[in-house]
Amino acid sequence: MVRILGLDPGSRVCGYGVIDETDGALAYVECGVLTAPETWPMEKRLGEIARGLREVIAELAPHVCAVEDVFSHQNPRTALALAQARGMALAVIGLNALTVASYPPASVKKAVSGSGRAEKSQVARMVQALIGLRSLPTADATDALAVAITHGRTMRPTAARMVSATIVAAPGRAP
Amino acid sequence: MVRILGLDPGSRVCGYGVIDETDGALAYVECGVLTAPETWPMEKRLGEIARGLREVIAELAPHVCAVEDVFSHQNPRTALALAQARGMALAVIGLNALTVASYPPASVKKAVSGSGRAEKSQVARMVQALIGLRSLPTADATDALAVAITHGRTMRPTAARMVSATIVAAPGRAP
Repeated sequence: MVRILGLDPGSRVCGYGVIDETDGALAYVECGVLTAPETWPMEKRLGEIARGLREVIAELAPHVCAVEDVFSHQNPRTALALAQARGMALAVIGLNALTVASYPPASVKKAVSGSGRAEKSQVARMVQALIGLRSLPTADATDALAVAITHGRTMRPTAARMVSATIVAAPGRAP
Repeated sequence: MVRILGLDPGSRVCGYGVIDETDGALAYVECGVLTAPETWPMEKRLGEIARGLREVIAELAPHVCAVEDVFSHQNPRTALALAQARGMALAVIGLNALTVASYPPASVKKAVSGSGRAEKSQVARMVQALIGLRSLPTADATDALAVAITHGRTMRPTAARMVSATIVAAPGRAP
């Protein structure tokens, strides 16, 4: 069994999602969001979220972490704020002697829904289906679960091949 | 006395510089660089640098921190890497219940050398002169001292006025 912690780090909210992967089967463990008041200065917010993340890691003891890449072609201010939050998360992961796998957003959509251009709502429904959630968590926690699932599916060669076969067939060809 | 920790965070090297400000007088305390092997993955590097920063804060007990802003008009990849390193530093600062003042690069040059467009070498010489260093430390440590000095000079209304008076007079007017 491999316990995977998926993270969706932001400077106001950091989503986290933990799943267990056992021989290709994925099982939900926990998800949620770590937050800090928006009125706090950045260093206090990042410190508070880092503290929460440290607790999540201590309590749930993941074996590996997964996050989405940050890209520079987004709004530059947003990209910088996300990169800052990502740096906070990576530092906490590194301080806990864990490693992190990083996935481009399109790879997460692909691995979860079969299409790199899937709608957010479609990805969310697939997250719910893949790990059997009764109801959908908040968007940030769902995104964190999506990247954890991505790692759970792509770290296994068989799962990875199945996923990419689906994608090749997807854009308009006969199934 | 106010002890100021200036930081120049990067993902491979984080410069730090500590000075004491007492009634407008600045005194050098310590400076150096925190590093991690370039071959390590990002989370391990950021974790290692975060650990070093935590030690610097624990040993030297600064009252306040100062860093430079990261701007999006630099090379986007560089800007994102710097923002990640900055997020790591801000999280460590926040976890230690310290606050941080952030200065645009031009303000640091201005506060240290009198001109927002000063050369790097000119700023370095002024850092050396202002806190009476026998020799110049490495570039990253010097940059960290420069932002600490900026905070030391601009946090005091009197010093701030003197600095800005110099600047106003600078572009071609009679002194």
